[in-house]
Amino acid sequence: MNRSSTRDSLKTIGEFGLIRNVKRQWPASSPWIITGIGDDAAILKARRGEQLLISTDILMGSIHFDLDYQTPKDLGWRAGVANLSDIAAMGGTPLYLLVSIAVPVRVPPRHVRELYRGIQAACHPFNVELIGGDTSSSPSQIFLSLTIVGSIRANRALTRNKAEIGDRLYVTGTIGDSNAGLRILQSHQANRRPFRRSAVETFLIRRHLRPAPRIHIGQLLVNRKLAHAAIDLSDGLSSDVGHVCEGSRVGAEIHADALPLSSQLRAFARQDKTDPLNIALRGGEDYELLFTAPAKHHQNVLRVSEQTRVPITCIGEIKPKAFGRQLALPGGRKQKLPNESFQHFRSR
Amino acid sequence: MNRSSTRDSLKTIGEFGLIRNVKRQWPASSPWIITGIGDDAAILKARRGEQLLISTDILMGSIHFDLDYQTPKDLGWRAGVANLSDIAAMGGTPLYLLVSIAVPVRVPPRHVRELYRGIQAACHPFNVELIGGDTSSSPSQIFLSLTIVGSIRANRALTRNKAEIGDRLYVTGTIGDSNAGLRILQSHQANRRPFRRSAVETFLIRRHLRPAPRIHIGQLLVNRKLAHAAIDLSDGLSSDVGHVCEGSRVGAEIHADALPLSSQLRAFARQDKTDPLNIALRGGEDYELLFTAPAKHHQNVLRVSEQTRVPITCIGEIKPKAFGRQLALPGGRKQKLPNESFQHFRSR
Repeated sequence: MNRSSTRDSLKTIGEFGLIRNVKRQWPASSPWIITGIGDDAAILKARRGEQLLISTDILMGSIHFDLDYQTPKDLGWRAGVANLSDIAAMGGTPLYLLVSIAVPVRVPPRHVRELYRGIQAACHPFNVELIGGDTSSSPSQIFLSLTIVGSIRANRALTRNKAEIGDRLYVTGTIGDSNAGLRILQSHQANRRPFRRSAVETFLIRRHLRPAPRIHIGQLLVNRKLAHAAIDLSDGLSSDVGHVCEGSRVGAEIHADALPLSSQLRAFARQDKTDPLNIALRGGEDYELLFTAPAKHHQNVLRVSEQTRVPITCIGEIKPKAFGRQLALPGGRKQKLPNESFQHFRSR
Repeated sequence: MNRSSTRDSLKTIGEFGLIRNVKRQWPASSPWIITGIGDDAAILKARRGEQLLISTDILMGSIHFDLDYQTPKDLGWRAGVANLSDIAAMGGTPLYLLVSIAVPVRVPPRHVRELYRGIQAACHPFNVELIGGDTSSSPSQIFLSLTIVGSIRANRALTRNKAEIGDRLYVTGTIGDSNAGLRILQSHQANRRPFRRSAVETFLIRRHLRPAPRIHIGQLLVNRKLAHAAIDLSDGLSSDVGHVCEGSRVGAEIHADALPLSSQLRAFARQDKTDPLNIALRGGEDYELLFTAPAKHHQNVLRVSEQTRVPITCIGEIKPKAFGRQLALPGGRKQKLPNESFQHFRSR
């Protein structure tokens, strides 16, 4: 909406006004969309030889964007990436998005617009189109519920239940950064004042607020038939390794000193007197990919890393179920991989 | 979950426990589902010659089910029907559902299970399968976000933008009942005590809490090529007629004395000293279908009514855009069709 006045509230715009604004801001143009936003349901053409991927994420946000540590655009971006990352983990192509939002009437419409812009910005590199959504009022919090639709060549999707004993375990990027960024924001928020960020802090905060979905890597793994199983790191490495092991009925050994930790995470951990390994294992929302591939594909996996300019690191190996899930520490000591990590109904 | 203790809270079950419970309660078995709940995304086979329908609804509920006027099961049912009805309005077949929920930790798990049971009960007659979802904690309210996927024979979906001048306007069932039921619940809730319901009240409350999606009627209209345009009555007749008129760039004349009002609505309105016509025009959440069909199909439309044992009533006619939207009152007087009805960001 162009006449961006702070006086126009959601109460005066109304629900249909909000939908019109969103349609104007993010028009759909794909020939596969027969009807997008504005009817009872979106109508989509099927693509021959393709299967459909569909995933949904719910996200809660505070309305106190000024006091809080994330802007509406950050919230939108993170919601978008949480969805895109689910498609990346299947090796698919993201196509369409539905965005539902419940928002208190006192939230200024420009915040709602910024939130949509954040979602749109995250989706933009992948030409994902908005095809639907819903709006509701909320008494105190902002709720965002996104549903993403993607496609994948028939019977090629990477699931979490096809890991095989002997497979190598890989992760993309570096892990734990997002959780460290969140901790920095939370500690500064507790002080309730603006702060000057160090380069380390800026890097880690950005990794939390602007994660990158690994769409291209997932697609290359599928196209080149390199991986057996994949999952995205949303709950935390330890927990997500557990999901793969449960799904595939296998065990795993993770090499602690192989985990790709950024120099910024190490610097933060030194200053904060915490164990960077612990953050890497238990911290969620990295949105990196964890996948397994047979050892014979190791060179080809490294080639994907070179091509996408994203580090891909072998962090361990798939073992028989009876082996359990173990963390091999430097010096030869082993311990059980911690099970708990961030879960929404538990304390962090 | 069988050991249904009130002591097990969402905090102890955790997010993954909740997902396991839901999977057990509502297992997916369709051969079109390659992967359902439990991976990063669901994987679906495409059906040849069919197009995909997809729609999403967000719903907020109070956690005070004991004091409040709806049970968790009622809330689930209504959320399910809101989604099913969107597919009914396109003339499609509902197939899959994704359910996301944000719920305060102090809500007992049996309430969450009942809520899912309500959704499932609404979907059961149509064999809709649960393929995904997400969970989150919420500080004070329950948020439900449902996404439904359906299918329709290619290029046969009923949209709201194909009404033609001269078409007759029809509605299924009776209208305004749901809003009257809501008013009764709200007035009794204000008294904060249990009440003995009259037969009239019981009927209207049930129409609010347990609406029926008109799936079969929508499908018959499509299969027999009877209708030009359709929409479901969620915002209120007046507003939904407006959506069809805007979408199709036409006007409409509604005959006030043709509107199908239940005897229960009339009885309630007499007692409540309100105008039943006003409730029928502005009250939302009827989830009946509003559709337009050429006059030559009138007999065939009535046959659909006989066959489904649901009243279908001609309530007016599509007019040129310049005609506007008029309500013809008994005695020949005409007035503008009221524009406002329930919108989420406005007061009711």
